[in-house]
Amino acid sequence: MNLRDIKQALLDSYQRDGGINHVDGVNLPAQDSVQQLAADYMHLIFPGFFEETGLTKQELPDFLDRLLARVERRLETEIEKSLRFAQEPKPGPRAKELTLTALDRLPTLRQVIQTDVAAAFAGDPAARSVEEIILAYPCVLSISLQRFAHELYNLGVPLLPRMLTEYGHERTGTDLHPGARIGEHFFIDHGTGVVIGETAEIGRHVKLYQGVALIARSTAGGQALRGTKRHPTIGDHVTIYASTTIMGGDTVIGAGSTIGGNVFVTQSVPPRSLVILEEHGLKVLNKDDRGPVAGVDWTI
Amino acid sequence: MNLRDIKQALLDSYQRDGGINHVDGVNLPAQDSVQQLAADYMHLIFPGFFEETGLTKQELPDFLDRLLARVERRLETEIEKSLRFAQEPKPGPRAKELTLTALDRLPTLRQVIQTDVAAAFAGDPAARSVEEIILAYPCVLSISLQRFAHELYNLGVPLLPRMLTEYGHERTGTDLHPGARIGEHFFIDHGTGVVIGETAEIGRHVKLYQGVALIARSTAGGQALRGTKRHPTIGDHVTIYASTTIMGGDTVIGAGSTIGGNVFVTQSVPPRSLVILEEHGLKVLNKDDRGPVAGVDWTI
Amino acid sequence: MNLRDIKQALLDSYQRDGGINHVDGVNLPAQDSVQQLAADYMHLIFPGFFEETGLTKQELPDFLDRLLARVERRLETEIEKSLRFAQEPKPGPRAKELTLTALDRLPTLRQVIQTDVAAAFAGDPAARSVEEIILAYPCVLSISLQRFAHELYNLGVPLLPRMLTEYGHERTGTDLHPGARIGEHFFIDHGTGVVIGETAEIGRHVKLYQGVALIARSTAGGQALRGTKRHPTIGDHVTIYASTTIMGGDTVIGAGSTIGGNVFVTQSVPPRSLVILEEHGLKVLNKDDRGPVAGVDWTI
Repeated sequence: MNLRDIKQALLDSYQRDGGINHVDGVNLPAQDSVQQLAADYMHLIFPGFFEETGLTKQELPDFLDRLLARVERRLETEIEKSLRFAQEPKPGPRAKELTLTALDRLPTLRQVIQTDVAAAFAGDPAARSVEEIILAYPCVLSISLQRFAHELYNLGVPLLPRMLTEYGHERTGTDLHPGARIGEHFFIDHGTGVVIGETAEIGRHVKLYQGVALIARSTAGGQALRGTKRHPTIGDHVTIYASTTIMGGDTVIGAGSTIGGNVFVTQSVPPRSLVILEEHGLKVLNKDDRGPVAGVDWTI
Repeated sequence: MNLRDIKQALLDSYQRDGGINHVDGVNLPAQDSVQQLAADYMHLIFPGFFEETGLTKQELPDFLDRLLARVERRLETEIEKSLRFAQEPKPGPRAKELTLTALDRLPTLRQVIQTDVAAAFAGDPAARSVEEIILAYPCVLSISLQRFAHELYNLGVPLLPRMLTEYGHERTGTDLHPGARIGEHFFIDHGTGVVIGETAEIGRHVKLYQGVALIARSTAGGQALRGTKRHPTIGDHVTIYASTTIMGGDTVIGAGSTIGGNVFVTQSVPPRSLVILEEHGLKVLNKDDRGPVAGVDWTI
Repeated sequence: MNLRDIKQALLDSYQRDGGINHVDGVNLPAQDSVQQLAADYMHLIFPGFFEETGLTKQELPDFLDRLLARVERRLETEIEKSLRFAQEPKPGPRAKELTLTALDRLPTLRQVIQTDVAAAFAGDPAARSVEEIILAYPCVLSISLQRFAHELYNLGVPLLPRMLTEYGHERTGTDLHPGARIGEHFFIDHGTGVVIGETAEIGRHVKLYQGVALIARSTAGGQALRGTKRHPTIGDHVTIYASTTIMGGDTVIGAGSTIGGNVFVTQSVPPRSLVILEEHGLKVLNKDDRGPVAGVDWTI
């Protein structure tokens, strides 16, 4: 066994085992470039928050000139790669057009993201200031990226939107699919483990805690289910507590409902519902004699 | 639609949509700088573990000189920014004083963190050595950072403590608020999804598995609840299994208790309690005829 | 209080508080180097996917030459450090031998990883292409690293395997121990919060959702339990939904079973079982009058 043999065996494997090589194909979007794009986008949305040395009103136009030019160039490049990969005709001109269309949405996106930041501040007594939210709450990155990726998704850009939200997933533990439609004033507290599937619809003023999953009933159908509504619909002003799973494309959580933590919901509930585990679902015993514990009242 | 119009629309948006710009304001702590501070702090606490090329006893004093000077400079800078942001009078001299006070706690912090490492080694049969714990267990980073951030929090430093723990959250999936009071010999196994709220109190020799959340009963009150005790109290020698949520500021888990996985606890339990889901909470069916499965005994 | 005193106190602490210093010891594997190794390994397994500018068939042999030489050098270095740490005799020659043995497994590993990618594509209707899976699904990184770490673990390499999977854990929230034996066509959807313990055994065509944990019944025994089978066995073609915990070394989930979300399973079930929470485990109330909600049917 020597390195030369190993090299040859790998070359053979590259030739033989298809699907996980990408040789002689079109260039694919590069993860490093997508990361840089995501970082620059955050600077565009929140000017002055992520710079090393602050930003004055005088500097703002030049700052924006440089940043916007960089974002345009990179976005166009990665969109073009994505279109070429999907064998779109005329990927060059189309990428140029889609890039401008996406960038044109930024002012509107900023207005929506502003409501998300406001919802986080209003919803968390631990937050001391809006600045603390923007600098230290993971939902800010993950929602801001999802909203931008959602625009690209709606414009029909392949690959890139999913890579953008996966960058957010990697940094925050929050897996928000670019396809999901999410209303304003959206707040995810803590975030780790949250999953929102491609066809989920979420109303306004919705609050999710960490570990909440809005998933498909079953994907045993796999690729055959592509395009169908597979993920739940959540009404306005719904709160869902930690580690709860809501499943299924026709599951609707009515407006104003509260879903307790650690439950698994597979059916619709009407507006203003409260869904919790039954008290007697839990047993409290004395560890030593395994007898019941007096004076513990589980009525909520 | 062209880039010039988009630029103008963004400038208008920066002027119009407040709260998510930070222009002409004081400098804020920079995320990159906070990350470097966190990395240097880990080198100070665990000398010789994270250096590229090892460390000899001869090199130690010089190593410490350089490292400590760097940490002092950076910590003072970021504390001063945080104080200026909160409009503290005399942020410069106050930052100098707070920096020395915080650094002075490091030897004591090391003693506590040593007990955390010992608890991880004692508690996990998969660990082969203390070195493996320090190099490859995420709890080491998250707890070490929380304990330092907690000192800064107690000293009244704004913003920075939360940014330090959020860096730990990003890397480990473990969201430990700087305000939480955590006793020695603390071990979080695996870690992803753990959330410990601002006013939680945790005794000594406590062990949490991934996904355990110590959260507030409701934050419908939002900012009005700031400052109240909103998160649970966990006694000494308590173990809480995976994905369990404990909620509420007056919820007390008595010393020596064990809480099973996937439960949602909203009431206090006395010392030496065992809290588990009732056996009949689970149903085991045959997938094919949906009939009961013989011979499955769920008694724990 | 001044910096000189603090420095002296830290030096005293380094002398006094053992176990969390590593001074005058052997060099340990460095986290940065392990990260670079992991990145290079991914390029070896998926040539052309992670390069900035694509890869042609002509470039492939040179690309492989350079990459393989770099991986060999780094792997040998880190294995040697790991062996020296464990006081293995002749760490140098042994590291050289183990490095070649491990690299020799790469073509076989590629074949297995190819089945994992195929399982992800087959199992997720949201995936548009195999390329999207490789570029944007976190399971690709975590499973690929675990399979390589598992080879090193089986070869008796200390420290390094655990550091490799912990790098995957940090990036994906998926904590897969190098010791776990995992069959082909393995798919973890979303991933965050998944934990697979050291002695778990997983069959072929198994699908796990985020938050699923295969853990030990109790680690109260701590280090005394090292080496025993402590984690569950999962049969072929089993699907386990989000946030479910399976516990214990003699817990066997029979082939073809489906385990619902948010359950805590501590007993074996026969093949083709369906394990779900009982319908009446959940209570649906009207939030306003706390009365029952008509028309909600929880029968699954």
